[in-house]
Amino acid sequence: MSAVQPIEWKDGVLRLLDQRLLPTREEWIECRDAAQTAAAITDMVVRGAPAIGVTAGFGMALSARIHAAGGGTGADLARRMEADRAVIRQARPTAVNLAWAVDRLAARLESLAGMSAEAAAAAIEAEAAAMFEEDVAANRALGAAGAEVVPDGARILTHCNAGALATAGYGTALGVVRAAAEAGKKVAVIADETRPFLQGARLTAWELQRDGIPVTLIADVAAASLLRAGDVDLVVVGADRIAANGDVANKVGTYPVAVLAREHGVPFYVAAPTSTVDLELPDGAAIPIEERGAEEVLTCFGTPIAPEGISVRNPAFDVTPHELVAGIATEEGLCRPPYSESLRAAVGRAKEKRGG
Amino acid sequence: MSAVQPIEWKDGVLRLLDQRLLPTREEWIECRDAAQTAAAITDMVVRGAPAIGVTAGFGMALSARIHAAGGGTGADLARRMEADRAVIRQARPTAVNLAWAVDRLAARLESLAGMSAEAAAAAIEAEAAAMFEEDVAANRALGAAGAEVVPDGARILTHCNAGALATAGYGTALGVVRAAAEAGKKVAVIADETRPFLQGARLTAWELQRDGIPVTLIADVAAASLLRAGDVDLVVVGADRIAANGDVANKVGTYPVAVLAREHGVPFYVAAPTSTVDLELPDGAAIPIEERGAEEVLTCFGTPIAPEGISVRNPAFDVTPHELVAGIATEEGLCRPPYSESLRAAVGRAKEKRGG
Repeated sequence: MSAVQPIEWKDGVLRLLDQRLLPTREEWIECRDAAQTAAAITDMVVRGAPAIGVTAGFGMALSARIHAAGGGTGADLARRMEADRAVIRQARPTAVNLAWAVDRLAARLESLAGMSAEAAAAAIEAEAAAMFEEDVAANRALGAAGAEVVPDGARILTHCNAGALATAGYGTALGVVRAAAEAGKKVAVIADETRPFLQGARLTAWELQRDGIPVTLIADVAAASLLRAGDVDLVVVGADRIAANGDVANKVGTYPVAVLAREHGVPFYVAAPTSTVDLELPDGAAIPIEERGAEEVLTCFGTPIAPEGISVRNPAFDVTPHELVAGIATEEGLCRPPYSESLRAAVGRAKEKRGG
Repeated sequence: MSAVQPIEWKDGVLRLLDQRLLPTREEWIECRDAAQTAAAITDMVVRGAPAIGVTAGFGMALSARIHAAGGGTGADLARRMEADRAVIRQARPTAVNLAWAVDRLAARLESLAGMSAEAAAAAIEAEAAAMFEEDVAANRALGAAGAEVVPDGARILTHCNAGALATAGYGTALGVVRAAAEAGKKVAVIADETRPFLQGARLTAWELQRDGIPVTLIADVAAASLLRAGDVDLVVVGADRIAANGDVANKVGTYPVAVLAREHGVPFYVAAPTSTVDLELPDGAAIPIEERGAEEVLTCFGTPIAPEGISVRNPAFDVTPHELVAGIATEEGLCRPPYSESLRAAVGRAKEKRGG
């Protein structure tokens, strides 16, 4: 089974599946410079922490292509790319994969200071392409690690879309689901619709239906009823940023699911590559939480649903304390508490492999 | 300030504000017999336990008018009304106010067996009109009882619409808000949008905006973030049925709010007339929970939001265990635990007053 791949890079053009239009329409947009790429991230053409990271990488590659035309050395190129780098890095605040990808390419560029600008740009493009491939590989590896805790016959509740559409192409939470299915286990997914942006209804339901994995859609508020009725065996969600102690920022609505899961003795797992772990933050209190515009709440997939002029609060993410997390599946294995040790070790192993 | 009244009875015609179209359009539908009235309840033209009860009463009055034309006695009328009575009583399963209203009018009819059918029908119509007036009076009384626990400056989280639109005209949970405001307290409401039917976005936001009470709309999933941030002082919701031990069936999504409120030390109150209390049910496990159609989840206010053919679970209500409830405001005062005693006493006082 081959999951959808929402990001394409070909001949210096970045093509993104416009996730704002799914499942009604499948349209692609093209980005040809850093500003277009940053706008696509801000406007949620592409979303999901790993997918944002990979897209940001190609945004840097686009910038490198354009600025290499000015000639000179890699150091000159780096200087000319500074403004683009800042624009991409600030496109959204919560997912750390964005900063991680930009910073990784900036560090690579620094190591190429003595080369010609043209050669440095080619190397940056190759590195961005490698990050794309690494993301798919990481998803497959963390999917397999997570699948170990999925019993045969499991009914898995997930929130938002941490699927192929949120990554370069296999998924984190849904990577766990796919890996369990590929291992021959019978699995079924219960998808929270995930208001206000409806990633569950529009994206998770769509990509699982496409792959023939059974999926049942519910309003977010019904998750508690299903948990209480014993209709959920485990919860698996993705992450946008994980602090050093294991606190997890993810799509708003994740935290209440975690509290309800504990209330009903259902294990709550997180699936994310080590690029989502931010060891510089001691805990979740320091994770910046994006507040998005009122129109997302005042409309539902474009239709007005509330009186005009009503005030709105629209936090896009929440933080789940590590005490509620049974395990974090990474490409370096399933991390268990205490996360301050297991996450640091996993990040260390991942860095070592890239260095080697 | 005069809140909206969604139910009108005039010259033997029942007019209902079509709550499926708010806030975009204000249209009224007319019911002229029991079947039309039952359909309006099933299709959620009118919703909210007390409003359903009052509407059912007028449906019985319509039936009585029509069948009184057959002549004979009150007993003959009762026999001819049996089919209508069953149709109305089964229009929706969870709100006990529906059965309560129908049974109350059936009992009244039984006491009129010796009268002429015409006189009995007139008495039924008068009783239905009295139930309308009683509901407004009960809302004002329970609003005042509940307002005692509302501090000045309170930020009150509510789920669904337990407002004027859910009753004959003042509201239960929003009756508490209105009574607090009328008592000179500064109050602000945080309204869960309440997927899938969006009663919060469409109805609660609309009626509070109309009355000039500050209201902030949120996606249901964001309530946990606000509770955790200390932005909510108390929760007040309505109820569709309350068991003898204080377990509360209310709109799906109420139970997770109650769990999250306890998690963050925020008191959770229920506001409902004694007609919502079902002393025959020992606890919430026996409350029938309506499962509604998939189309409510597959669409959002009419717009498709999910791929075709996806399976759906759509429980319309959930049950909040009495341990999570700090108090239940009724027209006979604020009931406190143990509810098995306080609710029985309140229901007894209400019955005594109607009998006297």
